[in-house]
Amino acid sequence: MAPKPRLSRIVSALPTDIPFVAPEVMERRAGREFRVRIGANESCFGMSPRAVAAMAAELPRASWYGDPESEELRAAISDRLDIQMANVTVACGIDDLQSIAVRAFMDPGDVAVMSLGAYPTFAYHVVGVGGSIHSVPYRDDRNDVSALIAAAHEARARVVFLANPDNPSGSWLSREEMEELLGGLPGGTLLILDEAYLEFGPADRLPLDVHDPRLIRFRTFSKAYGMAGMRIGYALGERSLLTPFDGIRLHFGVSRVAQAGALAAYADQDFLGGVIHAVDEGRVDYYRMAERLGIGALRSRANFVSFDLGQKERAVRVMDGLISRGIFVRKPGNPPLDRCVRVTVGTPEQRAIFEKTFAEVLQIT
Amino acid sequence: MAPKPRLSRIVSALPTDIPFVAPEVMERRAGREFRVRIGANESCFGMSPRAVAAMAAELPRASWYGDPESEELRAAISDRLDIQMANVTVACGIDDLQSIAVRAFMDPGDVAVMSLGAYPTFAYHVVGVGGSIHSVPYRDDRNDVSALIAAAHEARARVVFLANPDNPSGSWLSREEMEELLGGLPGGTLLILDEAYLEFGPADRLPLDVHDPRLIRFRTFSKAYGMAGMRIGYALGERSLLTPFDGIRLHFGVSRVAQAGALAAYADQDFLGGVIHAVDEGRVDYYRMAERLGIGALRSRANFVSFDLGQKERAVRVMDGLISRGIFVRKPGNPPLDRCVRVTVGTPEQRAIFEKTFAEVLQIT
Repeated sequence: MAPKPRLSRIVSALPTDIPFVAPEVMERRAGREFRVRIGANESCFGMSPRAVAAMAAELPRASWYGDPESEELRAAISDRLDIQMANVTVACGIDDLQSIAVRAFMDPGDVAVMSLGAYPTFAYHVVGVGGSIHSVPYRDDRNDVSALIAAAHEARARVVFLANPDNPSGSWLSREEMEELLGGLPGGTLLILDEAYLEFGPADRLPLDVHDPRLIRFRTFSKAYGMAGMRIGYALGERSLLTPFDGIRLHFGVSRVAQAGALAAYADQDFLGGVIHAVDEGRVDYYRMAERLGIGALRSRANFVSFDLGQKERAVRVMDGLISRGIFVRKPGNPPLDRCVRVTVGTPEQRAIFEKTFAEVLQIT
Repeated sequence: MAPKPRLSRIVSALPTDIPFVAPEVMERRAGREFRVRIGANESCFGMSPRAVAAMAAELPRASWYGDPESEELRAAISDRLDIQMANVTVACGIDDLQSIAVRAFMDPGDVAVMSLGAYPTFAYHVVGVGGSIHSVPYRDDRNDVSALIAAAHEARARVVFLANPDNPSGSWLSREEMEELLGGLPGGTLLILDEAYLEFGPADRLPLDVHDPRLIRFRTFSKAYGMAGMRIGYALGERSLLTPFDGIRLHFGVSRVAQAGALAAYADQDFLGGVIHAVDEGRVDYYRMAERLGIGALRSRANFVSFDLGQKERAVRVMDGLISRGIFVRKPGNPPLDRCVRVTVGTPEQRAIFEKTFAEVLQIT
């Protein structure tokens, strides 16, 4: 019997369980499909009809690899943002881009700082290169800027991760708070600024300065543009921070059809505006729903709201009750937000079904 | 001025130039599109109409992430191959899968053995984890089994890469030769068997044994199934070799639409048979074309033929002449095949345009 191939040191030390269980996996276990899918912050408002048409039109050319430079899309993005194309990198969504960034800026043994309970896939990338996470609790259900700064100094962090708007709290750091964070980080620490939900956020934003070597921003077509299933996103930053991506990214990795769809979606800002408006309305509806149901709801600047059940055990029971009744939602896994159930903003019809079921479940939990 | 974030040790040592220049990049430089695109071994025979229809039907659900387990596709593959689903992993094409495999089985400083001039993206993955390539020249324009075995022992290789059918030679290793290779490798050395072009190959194959811990096979929907632009492929192997992929792969990375398309394409074996037949005819047509034009052509078991121009300088001039006349082809970069121009099997119409232009170019080079 031949000896088996030996795993790499890093991978042999990794868990192989996945960060979350997908709705499809739950559906197979339950033997039926969810009635309402509002658990993964996928857009319930679809994508621009122009994007759908562009993708359908590109399908006959899907025997060809996509342009490895995503030239047309990068040109459109850099034109609108008034930056150079060299300040934009396109890859298969934020997960792909952050995986590349972590490989580019972290060595085995290095530390990344992030809030406890923030995006678990980022931590997955860090552990996947042999790094470790130093996590900082939320304070008042928000990212704690002072504590993140202190932790970055204490842990000599190579990288700090922050999402703005934040997931799963939905909270927002103002321009002033972002400047405080950036100014307080140790020299040479890179801020990975995840802007997956940016389009839903307020106008009080850290201005885009692609000459600032302290951060890379990550944006996506998965959320407001409604294209999660197509896998395409982009990073914005100083040229010297993005060029190294070219040494490890999959150059022919971005779907040709996704490129065509993203280009059309990006051009259709009217559709995007409609989605943002509908999500604004839906968030307010969720706050009122919480009042009607006698529970709390965190104010959110993203396309989801975390409903506050007061304590973890009840939140678990409520989530399980919703899932068993065909409503796909998720629950933050870490304190203090593990007392909440996180619900994506659905359409008015989906919200009505959700509220009816939510009320039933709350009565018995 | 703040210090810039420091690159990881591995990435700071990498070149950032990409392995090849894409046809879109050439088109932008030339200011016009290629008349015939037969340089990247993309299928010229399109994809199953059932796959196109399945993808068009899935587009409205592309706001949802794809199933991270690719359950339906893995069920279809494992059913047909009479193996377990745990022996199949799906990801975004062979590049993605081989990148994962290299991260899983190679540490920095480790060596991989491959033929000089074989798939450059594989070498790119190896260098990208801090490994190095020990390359072995082709012998008689084929993979040299004895030399690969000797090199694997000499270099204490963690991994050996082999494509069968081979690219860019188009050559084939019989079942007997494959068994010789596997039997001769050092214990614990993993064979990365790239079967991107398998569907075009002969029946004299190494049987599939997913209990054999010495190899992982890599297959794709990019070539015979004509779906390069959708990014989907799969790996077959022993469960203990594939499970570690779950520790580093992008779980939500495979496009939902690509999953639907691959499932339909895989079911349409009649269409696939037609493509294989058309490619068989096209290869024979290319051999005859070479005779008419007074040059050589390597016998191929893949969807391309390497035309033999006798020496590198002429091959470069011929490739440049074809490209400047709107025909996209590629040329192997390493001896002995750098005397060739590699041409994907086109449709009869594309082959006619190619032959006319090829004859013109040969007359003046």
